[in-house]
Amino acid sequence: MRAITFSAPGGPEVLEVTEEPQPGIAPDEVLVAVHAAGINRADLLQRQGFYSPPPGATTIPGLEVSGTIAEVGPEVTGWTVGDRVAALLTGGGYAEAVPVPAGQLLPVPESLSLTEAAALPEVLGTVHSNIVGRAGIRAGEWLLVHGGASGIGTAAIQVAKHLGVRVVVTVGSEAKAQFCRELGADAVINYREADFVARVHEICTREDGTTGADVILDIIGAKYLERNIKALTTDGRLVIIGLQGGTKAEINLGDLLQPRKTVTATTLRARPKEQKAQIIAEVSEQLWPAVAAGDIRPIIHETLPLAEAGRGHTALEEGSSIGKVLLVVDEDSQSTEDTQEEGTRP
Amino acid sequence: MRAITFSAPGGPEVLEVTEEPQPGIAPDEVLVAVHAAGINRADLLQRQGFYSPPPGATTIPGLEVSGTIAEVGPEVTGWTVGDRVAALLTGGGYAEAVPVPAGQLLPVPESLSLTEAAALPEVLGTVHSNIVGRAGIRAGEWLLVHGGASGIGTAAIQVAKHLGVRVVVTVGSEAKAQFCRELGADAVINYREADFVARVHEICTREDGTTGADVILDIIGAKYLERNIKALTTDGRLVIIGLQGGTKAEINLGDLLQPRKTVTATTLRARPKEQKAQIIAEVSEQLWPAVAAGDIRPIIHETLPLAEAGRGHTALEEGSSIGKVLLVVDEDSQSTEDTQEEGTRP
Repeated sequence: MRAITFSAPGGPEVLEVTEEPQPGIAPDEVLVAVHAAGINRADLLQRQGFYSPPPGATTIPGLEVSGTIAEVGPEVTGWTVGDRVAALLTGGGYAEAVPVPAGQLLPVPESLSLTEAAALPEVLGTVHSNIVGRAGIRAGEWLLVHGGASGIGTAAIQVAKHLGVRVVVTVGSEAKAQFCRELGADAVINYREADFVARVHEICTREDGTTGADVILDIIGAKYLERNIKALTTDGRLVIIGLQGGTKAEINLGDLLQPRKTVTATTLRARPKEQKAQIIAEVSEQLWPAVAAGDIRPIIHETLPLAEAGRGHTALEEGSSIGKVLLVVDEDSQSTEDTQEEGTRP
Repeated sequence: MRAITFSAPGGPEVLEVTEEPQPGIAPDEVLVAVHAAGINRADLLQRQGFYSPPPGATTIPGLEVSGTIAEVGPEVTGWTVGDRVAALLTGGGYAEAVPVPAGQLLPVPESLSLTEAAALPEVLGTVHSNIVGRAGIRAGEWLLVHGGASGIGTAAIQVAKHLGVRVVVTVGSEAKAQFCRELGADAVINYREADFVARVHEICTREDGTTGADVILDIIGAKYLERNIKALTTDGRLVIIGLQGGTKAEINLGDLLQPRKTVTATTLRARPKEQKAQIIAEVSEQLWPAVAAGDIRPIIHETLPLAEAGRGHTALEEGSSIGKVLLVVDEDSQSTEDTQEEGTRP
């Protein structure tokens, strides 16, 4: 099968189309004939040599796909050859076929094209497992999301509104600010123009007079650690899911103790299969009906052919994209199936 | 009424017996005629000038007492004048009388003396609210407690065993190690003789091959931050409740991200009344029956007259005590009521 691989770490140019062996499946897996694959920031880190696949995982990048089931393992129930699915992966999405544990599959509703469906598993799994699973966010609380126009950010805005959570996001441009507002963000901070800590304490207010974010979903890490802690309210939870701003920082534990603040960090990729299945089950139960109804929708910046994976990585690295960049693997079906997608990005 | 106060921060010698106005009560409070008061490390910090009482709280130290109810506010139900109670306070325990919100009271079971009861509210509230409430510890998990022979440590060992949690503690002497083993600790590490990180990974093992503590209850802070994070297993939670080893530390967020670790910090004193009531309700429901049955027992190092509060503070500062140091306020009743206590410390 065709896949995107690289023989040595480097820039986007190291990604190339190669011929790889067709993968087999385990008894609890299905084989998905891939239609489209989402590009995630973890793929960029992997390509740069900073993020090795977990032990036992394929070295082909790609943490989410959509497609149709081509083969069903003997222990799998509830799925049939030909089913349209979206899938969360530990790797291997940039390819024509990928084996997937059945617990990591989501059915693609009629209302979504197969291409659109590839934009959802990683962002919805990441957002839900962190703001609900890890931080225990509750309706009425304030969520701060850095990178509001990213794939994660645009998903977080919609998930927050679906859960009755008030959400403020940071962005780096007026175009992104406008987009996030239209998507439902209660407030937007342009971090190039304002100190986000001060703005968060102005925006995130409560009847009891307290201010600050209850939960922060952060992709920056060290560079923002002190400011994020300051932006939290009492009993606030900082959830770090990316380290784009470095890993080492000074922390003043006194800033945590009296206001009972929490700093936690997670990645989705390294979680064991059982946890991934649990996360997908929660997405399926708590978010997927809203996806089917169009209340939570995939935000897609750009759709590229598989062979142009390098261009997709460059788009994410430049940081000007709004929403997800997808690779269409099964290009034959794109022209017929995806005509409806023109309206996805306002 | 007689109380212990200090006119300027300083060493234990600044504590003196003074005559203070008898406190009034709010409609949702009772007045407790104090029999005994527990000494906590927070009292030492307050005396040193490092830990101001929360806004609105009395400046008289003392975060827990036992005694009898002398007066009942009009909004209070379920409590009567003369009831034997233990109470969690925001301050004011080193005195002959203290007002207490009704939600912060626990009934003293027949099996405990009033003196013994003063040793329990703060340690049980702190341990339960942190290892269960904050860290969500589950039966079968491994808990690491620093300062196993302290008031908190001796309570944590017993609470852990009551919850089916496996517990390892650090101590600084063989006498303390022996005591903690007899109290039920699954393992004890003398931090003067061994690297606790290496020992924790040897001791805290699981059938799936993973090692390390699921939860750490820490009183050290900065000095132990890096080592505590290393001692945690995947999805582990570090709960900091004291900063005896300083506040500022370097943190490598990369050490948190892939293994999905959490650092959180809390104090009990600054929590609002509603949270204190919730914590006491959980102690009442989940731990108090075991207290009444003698399965969780107060560990008392020394009982001193109120006027010798300074000696009590010195005992805690020296670090050689095992369990709690208590001040008996109502000395007349001590001789008759507390004869049974001789056996409290093995």
